[in-house]
Amino acid sequence: MPELRKDPISGRWVIIATERGKRPSSFNSTEKVSTGGFCPLCAGNEDKTPPEVFAYRPYGSQPDTPGWSLRVVPNKFPALRIEGELDRRGEGIYDKMNGVGAHEVIVECPEHDQTFSSLPVSHCEKILLTYRNRIHDLYRDRRFKYISIFRNQGEAAGASLAHPHSQLIALPVVPKRSVEELAGAREYFNYKERCVYCDIVRQEKAQGVRIVSENQGFLAIAPFASRFPFEVWVLPQQHSSSFEETPEWYYASLAEVFSDTLKRLTITLNDPPYNFMLHTSPGNEKINDYYHWHFEIIPRLTKVAGFEWGSGFYINPTSPEDATKFLQEALPALSVR
Amino acid sequence: MPELRKDPISGRWVIIATERGKRPSSFNSTEKVSTGGFCPLCAGNEDKTPPEVFAYRPYGSQPDTPGWSLRVVPNKFPALRIEGELDRRGEGIYDKMNGVGAHEVIVECPEHDQTFSSLPVSHCEKILLTYRNRIHDLYRDRRFKYISIFRNQGEAAGASLAHPHSQLIALPVVPKRSVEELAGAREYFNYKERCVYCDIVRQEKAQGVRIVSENQGFLAIAPFASRFPFEVWVLPQQHSSSFEETPEWYYASLAEVFSDTLKRLTITLNDPPYNFMLHTSPGNEKINDYYHWHFEIIPRLTKVAGFEWGSGFYINPTSPEDATKFLQEALPALSVR
Repeated sequence: MPELRKDPISGRWVIIATERGKRPSSFNSTEKVSTGGFCPLCAGNEDKTPPEVFAYRPYGSQPDTPGWSLRVVPNKFPALRIEGELDRRGEGIYDKMNGVGAHEVIVECPEHDQTFSSLPVSHCEKILLTYRNRIHDLYRDRRFKYISIFRNQGEAAGASLAHPHSQLIALPVVPKRSVEELAGAREYFNYKERCVYCDIVRQEKAQGVRIVSENQGFLAIAPFASRFPFEVWVLPQQHSSSFEETPEWYYASLAEVFSDTLKRLTITLNDPPYNFMLHTSPGNEKINDYYHWHFEIIPRLTKVAGFEWGSGFYINPTSPEDATKFLQEALPALSVR
Repeated sequence: MPELRKDPISGRWVIIATERGKRPSSFNSTEKVSTGGFCPLCAGNEDKTPPEVFAYRPYGSQPDTPGWSLRVVPNKFPALRIEGELDRRGEGIYDKMNGVGAHEVIVECPEHDQTFSSLPVSHCEKILLTYRNRIHDLYRDRRFKYISIFRNQGEAAGASLAHPHSQLIALPVVPKRSVEELAGAREYFNYKERCVYCDIVRQEKAQGVRIVSENQGFLAIAPFASRFPFEVWVLPQQHSSSFEETPEWYYASLAEVFSDTLKRLTITLNDPPYNFMLHTSPGNEKINDYYHWHFEIIPRLTKVAGFEWGSGFYINPTSPEDATKFLQEALPALSVR
């Protein structure tokens, strides 16, 4: 059973996936994304994954057979295990609990050679609705306090399979990054009685120098204090604290801006490796006035070195204003305003 | 002039090094560590760096001439500039200031093909004493609130020059990571009236399953909640809040454990890329009861992917207890106990 352990100084949790039990020598062989040969996520190989927990497939077709256009399966090598109790306990001054959680793979399409940004906008909408669906389903399990959705594109971004897929990890504790953002947003709200992200949307629209893409519902911006070159956040224009509580008709609008933003990054940076992550409210405070869900997209162009690890201070060689100009030039602006 | 910008939600500062002004295409060409050809840090090329600010060199020899055994020079492409005022100011809801600071390179030895762990222990001591010296000197400048010392070994760890060197960045604000650690340590002290790191030292010595190296003065441990495989912290055994306020005779003892630890990592992981960073109290609270300086050493064996970036939650495939066993087997234990 994997173990969750808490750093006694920072409060940060880590998953010690002891069963993976890597030996020192196994780190030397550079793991490559398999680009040819067998792919367990391709159509026709449904028996090579654990049984699907969700799919878009023709009415009446059987689970785990071809014909699907999108499929969600448990991760074959999960970082956390779905079975068992948390069994929170101490070990002297240290705290730990069992590594209980869910780890799922969202296979975004049957075709191996697509990417998120090359898929039709209507298909992106399906992917986003699938995230929503899985979050709703998993929160019925009261052990889960936070659900993290993320995507690794390309080897440099940590992808180990080339087939288009995103991932979901349901956690029994709220991760540090989310706790921090919620605390920061709450503090701002207490002081100003306004959501800090709503203020950001307002100021970005007024200044107009960091807007990468927008339509009526959503805004994509290069954040003022971007940690990384060409970092982009996608936010709803109206206050909304929870991704999964957003009305269903909103997702077409999100898919449009999200897909447009990824296309701009793909063109400008020549198909870069990237990560994107959903940032949303935890399960026990879904509806609130201070937090505002968003996606953060990080192209992996620079190496994070000792200074960044040691300080949490980032050196970004490209200003968000410059990045915005390049991204704006990549494509005509969306017509729906 | 580079700019410091603050994220309005998390309070994290970033350096926007606008003058480096990277174009999108410049990220595509993978920057390699130059392994042959000209090296500006080698002996004989002293005129290719900015004038030295400190050196170990024979009595009477001229600055910026050969003969030195260790040399500190300003970074030729600094992330921050030494000249000017901070000029703290707002831009709507955002906060920024000028990118004032110091960025220095500690050239650890004249030879190109050494590494920190292959140098004699007495030379490691010189390097550590140089860190101390530079910190003392730079804190005379009241604009600097925190001094970060770090080392990037190998391309995967962000090194852009192969010649053995560490770096120093003096910052006009205390970085987020340090603020968090201080807050966590202060909270623990308020509750228990004990330093959390002293408690860690005590428990690790009692449990004996995560001790990588030790002598009378120092302890190297694989931390209980290691974020990364083979992560190691080096701590003084006795409470000490500031690296640079540690008595000078202590550094020989530190050099012994530090060098032994790096040798063990080098042997076990076959010369891995790594970062190490000094974690110490900020300039304005050097002497305190709650914080305990230490070095964190992180071999760069795994890729940090979307989940880690998005959540601040780490998945570590090697338990610190397993890592300790491998590191203990690499060499006989230090004889000085």
